[in-house]
Amino acid sequence: MSESDGTAPEKVRGMDWSRRPGDPADPVVDAEGFAGMAGLGLDSNFVVVHGAGSFGHFQASRSGVHKGGLHSTLVKAGFVATRISVTSLNQEIVRALAREGIPSVGMSPFACGWSTQRRDLASANASQIIESLHAGFVPVLHGDAVLDESLDCTILSGDVIIRHLAQLLTPKYVVFLTDVHGVYDRPPTDPNAVLLKEIEVDDNGGWSIVKPALQGNRKEVEISVAAHDTTGGMETKILEAAAIARLGVDVYITKVDTEHSLRALKGDVNTSSDDWLGTVIRAAK
Amino acid sequence: MSESDGTAPEKVRGMDWSRRPGDPADPVVDAEGFAGMAGLGLDSNFVVVHGAGSFGHFQASRSGVHKGGLHSTLVKAGFVATRISVTSLNQEIVRALAREGIPSVGMSPFACGWSTQRRDLASANASQIIESLHAGFVPVLHGDAVLDESLDCTILSGDVIIRHLAQLLTPKYVVFLTDVHGVYDRPPTDPNAVLLKEIEVDDNGGWSIVKPALQGNRKEVEISVAAHDTTGGMETKILEAAAIARLGVDVYITKVDTEHSLRALKGDVNTSSDDWLGTVIRAAK
Repeated sequence: MSESDGTAPEKVRGMDWSRRPGDPADPVVDAEGFAGMAGLGLDSNFVVVHGAGSFGHFQASRSGVHKGGLHSTLVKAGFVATRISVTSLNQEIVRALAREGIPSVGMSPFACGWSTQRRDLASANASQIIESLHAGFVPVLHGDAVLDESLDCTILSGDVIIRHLAQLLTPKYVVFLTDVHGVYDRPPTDPNAVLLKEIEVDDNGGWSIVKPALQGNRKEVEISVAAHDTTGGMETKILEAAAIARLGVDVYITKVDTEHSLRALKGDVNTSSDDWLGTVIRAAK
Repeated sequence: MSESDGTAPEKVRGMDWSRRPGDPADPVVDAEGFAGMAGLGLDSNFVVVHGAGSFGHFQASRSGVHKGGLHSTLVKAGFVATRISVTSLNQEIVRALAREGIPSVGMSPFACGWSTQRRDLASANASQIIESLHAGFVPVLHGDAVLDESLDCTILSGDVIIRHLAQLLTPKYVVFLTDVHGVYDRPPTDPNAVLLKEIEVDDNGGWSIVKPALQGNRKEVEISVAAHDTTGGMETKILEAAAIARLGVDVYITKVDTEHSLRALKGDVNTSSDDWLGTVIRAAK
């Protein structure tokens, strides 16, 4: 999420000064360089939320943490194992951002006191996230194992976290980074798949595809969502994106590590031109 | 901190199921073994707080994070670097405890929303720590870089965290684990140093050595504290320990990784016998 675009600093000064296992000595720190900088020269007014990827899914599914039941020793052990894995990934992402000069601070939803009630967020105080943003830091949250008032415990997904933060912080826009260019009308591996460039969501949750103009029953996004669902978690992303769009916050879904994702992160998305690849989901006017 | 002693399980089943860099595959998880356990068979009703050690002190002192001033780019970078280092250590400690079957969950004071006012704790909500204890987990906290209302930011030490938690949770006792047997009347490297086995603290903050009986001016603990101070941070530990003792909570200071530390952690300390090495600090009756 971003509220303004920014320019990159002339020279990136990394902020991961920690030793790696096997490093012989303390890292070289350009303290004088930092001290002479008027500022970081980049926009830090955003929040990063990441999922678990290959970190955590194995641990959670092996023990059934998402289904709850901490009286089971296996679930309790799986809760501990899942948190170790997802916080390891969080640490790697915070380090990678810090190496690029982004003042990132890891914040685990569990440690922040976030909890759920039958998997819906029940308690999610974001005051520390807001304080960190005001202090110029970039909070980095993640999908996490959390306590649940009914189930004892469950898994809180990054997509649900993003929707909740969008409600609380009302950012200018939200970007979902994925491994495909956006939302297609059928699985993107299908050679006839069409990238849906603009989707409108109305107050009742109904959808309409604004771009491109599709024919016949291909107007139904529900069909394409169902098709996507079998190829991996796009359905949750789209449902959460639609919920965010209904708040009046534009959502950009685009491919990570491309010029399109860079433009989306800067808010530089114009659906009337053809040179941006991605899906915009917004509220119907 | 512990509220009851416990017995070790017959077989330790590790809870760190995360992959290490270079590991070829997912770890072997004894899910059936866990599922068949009625419980972990050990006491998990305690909180672990650790300092930064060699993790964090370099990063904090290089940038002056403890003195505050986030308008300085160096301090901001140092804040990020310090948090990366201390959370790396926290992750290692959580993993080590989990490998021994302790259901540990890392919780960073910064992420928990703890903040200071001129280095004194200003906001320190412990509700998530209490919830975690009730759910059967062992919270693992650490000294951390935090936001400060006057200084912008500072370093919150583990010793201050322990005192605050003792106030909130009123545990049966608190154990400080160090690299010497306890508090001595002079630096422990001095061959004439005497281990102070029992110290009483009165309501006014005055101290008296109950055991052993010392002669002349060696009754003054202040002198030995000052002497210790130059050999490394024992002074803060003793001051915080005295503050905890004044709450009516016994404090045991003892050497890590010895039979004495095991006994202290179980609350099995009897100052009337000579076979326990350590210092007990308690409130005068």
